[in-house]
Amino acid sequence: MLVEKYKKMLSGKSVIRQLSEFATARGKEIGYENVFDYSLGNPSVPVPDKFTQVMIKMLKEESPVKLHGYSPSLGNPEVKEKIAASLRKRFDIPYTAEHIFPASGAAGALSHAFRLVTEPGDEILTFAPFFPEYHPYVDLTGAVLKVVPANTEDFQINFAAFEEMINEKTMAILINTPNNPSGIVYSAETLTRLADVLTKKSVEFGHTIYLISDEPYRELVFEGVDAPCVSKFYDHTIMCYSFSKSISLPGERIGYLAVNPACEGAEFMVPMCGQISRGIGHNCPSSIIQMAVAEVLEDTSDLSVYETNMNLIYKELMDLGFTCVKPGGTFYIFPKALEEDAKVFCEKALKYDLVLVPSDSFGVPGYFRMAYCIDTEKVKRSLVALRKFVETEYPDRKEIKC
Amino acid sequence: MLVEKYKKMLSGKSVIRQLSEFATARGKEIGYENVFDYSLGNPSVPVPDKFTQVMIKMLKEESPVKLHGYSPSLGNPEVKEKIAASLRKRFDIPYTAEHIFPASGAAGALSHAFRLVTEPGDEILTFAPFFPEYHPYVDLTGAVLKVVPANTEDFQINFAAFEEMINEKTMAILINTPNNPSGIVYSAETLTRLADVLTKKSVEFGHTIYLISDEPYRELVFEGVDAPCVSKFYDHTIMCYSFSKSISLPGERIGYLAVNPACEGAEFMVPMCGQISRGIGHNCPSSIIQMAVAEVLEDTSDLSVYETNMNLIYKELMDLGFTCVKPGGTFYIFPKALEEDAKVFCEKALKYDLVLVPSDSFGVPGYFRMAYCIDTEKVKRSLVALRKFVETEYPDRKEIKC
Repeated sequence: MLVEKYKKMLSGKSVIRQLSEFATARGKEIGYENVFDYSLGNPSVPVPDKFTQVMIKMLKEESPVKLHGYSPSLGNPEVKEKIAASLRKRFDIPYTAEHIFPASGAAGALSHAFRLVTEPGDEILTFAPFFPEYHPYVDLTGAVLKVVPANTEDFQINFAAFEEMINEKTMAILINTPNNPSGIVYSAETLTRLADVLTKKSVEFGHTIYLISDEPYRELVFEGVDAPCVSKFYDHTIMCYSFSKSISLPGERIGYLAVNPACEGAEFMVPMCGQISRGIGHNCPSSIIQMAVAEVLEDTSDLSVYETNMNLIYKELMDLGFTCVKPGGTFYIFPKALEEDAKVFCEKALKYDLVLVPSDSFGVPGYFRMAYCIDTEKVKRSLVALRKFVETEYPDRKEIKC
Repeated sequence: MLVEKYKKMLSGKSVIRQLSEFATARGKEIGYENVFDYSLGNPSVPVPDKFTQVMIKMLKEESPVKLHGYSPSLGNPEVKEKIAASLRKRFDIPYTAEHIFPASGAAGALSHAFRLVTEPGDEILTFAPFFPEYHPYVDLTGAVLKVVPANTEDFQINFAAFEEMINEKTMAILINTPNNPSGIVYSAETLTRLADVLTKKSVEFGHTIYLISDEPYRELVFEGVDAPCVSKFYDHTIMCYSFSKSISLPGERIGYLAVNPACEGAEFMVPMCGQISRGIGHNCPSSIIQMAVAEVLEDTSDLSVYETNMNLIYKELMDLGFTCVKPGGTFYIFPKALEEDAKVFCEKALKYDLVLVPSDSFGVPGYFRMAYCIDTEKVKRSLVALRKFVETEYPDRKEIKC
């Protein structure tokens, strides 16, 4: 009598998870330092030391009853005010505490955002390539996730396909910039055009189409790259942020939802999140973690290793004859595979202890993702294996390159 | 275009929350120490110092990347094993790590349990008096919560009403012992009889009826009271536990779901919880908090203050002529009001700065709840106010007592 939909999902194991398990198992055979594991997006650099010191200080000096007591159901007011102030200062958007809802990471924020603006049967559109978890996140609300095919030229938005797919049932658009898996940052031009389409279509369909902006990689932007703030382009934006990647706290499940003050219904949204929480059992992220991140809002981990790794990998990929759009941020890169079936390509790479993720579940066939949140020293060794793999398996690769 | 069901909920503010806000506001006028605030179930004693020391030690000595990295989606395996071992030892039920799912407090555990065993339209039965949050918790899943009227004699189960209400659509029974709001502990006799009904009805209806046991007050049991382990009485039990009350960590949102190994479908349940999590945005409680509670599984806060308070209050209530079932645990007491309408009764008490919660939302009219998780010194002062209130407003109360 268990509920079948969840039971059925057990057979559909995530490819990323399977590959990560392979890497762990292989590591037990040959030493994990010899497995070039590019499967998981788990940050490799520590949280800023200030966070650790803040935690220790609070634990030593604060009253435990205050430190670990219930947060109000809409989040700790002082924490909300600090987040709002930081966003105001940085993006010049008049956020106040009333627009901020602390959540269990971006996943928690998204789970509230989807429920705010969709009923079962409504559609949410997203753009390939996209984070595969969006499917269960949306599907299990009863709304329907539709994927707009990729613009493989530069992984900006495929507007022709988008305008064809958007329809009366579309209640929200879900974007992720800087993007997992492509590493691409949406340009101001892309965001302006997206906002124009949404404004026009909202009028045409007689209802506001919301923009849900998933921004865990907001701080992971490489030198010289302009990463515009999505909420600046379209009023009806719900920002979903996570501290997982910027300060390397993925396991602490801490992030927030920030409603643009000019958004339709902005005054109701955070209180409504409190109601949604009752239904999904959230009731705020950890109290002490909320208070601690509020003290490091302007800090990041030392993220430079990701850019160093990206440059090394990108150069070698180019030298080896791959087709690849250069990432503007994140710790992902998304090159074209050297044969049509990316699964076969990634399968062959395993023989060289290179753990690459085929792109099919990201909504684009024929590519692969590398999550380069690993030590630079290991990246360097992996490139030797990559060259060997490519030269051995694809000696004629110049012809395959398109 | 915001979703109406959540927007509508904004008008239905919780009575407990309103009273708590009144207490805070009144505290600003006359000093909070002079407001006898019995509204909220927020623990008043600190977490065991060992927890704080464990946290500090981990923060100082462990690698931050390990400490704050992603937990596996079914929870930290070492933490799960420690919880299972502790339950095995204590209750002699062969739990293993595979039966344990760390969750964001009991609310998080319950939100998974309901989804495991009910589809929209299915029914869950609970017994009055009950925790009012069960309504949004269940309602928002699409299942239907039905409330069996109270046995006001002793607040054990009203079996006559129960057997009348249970039907083919009943997929689960939800119980809470020690109970919020009554403080009552279900006896072995009650649990045996409940299990017998469930076994008989499961056969009659051709499907297993699950028992969901909400146990945040498991460790808050008073001297001489026998609080039997629910899972010992019925195989198909899903235990939902929280550390909020036992070690005073309500804000950290930490608890677990423990599936009885003999439960139908036990082998699927924890993996299914992982799938449910994807849909509701949980993805595990805080990583560092999981690890820290695993080190204090056998500890509790100094809970004796609650029993001291209960004895003081119970004695005074008896002296004043109230009708009241003596609590066996928790930090609640649930006396009969001195007039039919408990809301009017509690309204009058406010004039004496006594903040009592009327019982209507707990599913029993005519009673009130006192959450005595406050300092004993304040309890003593409050009893003076209580006597004044009762003697002034109900001089003829002996006639009202039934």
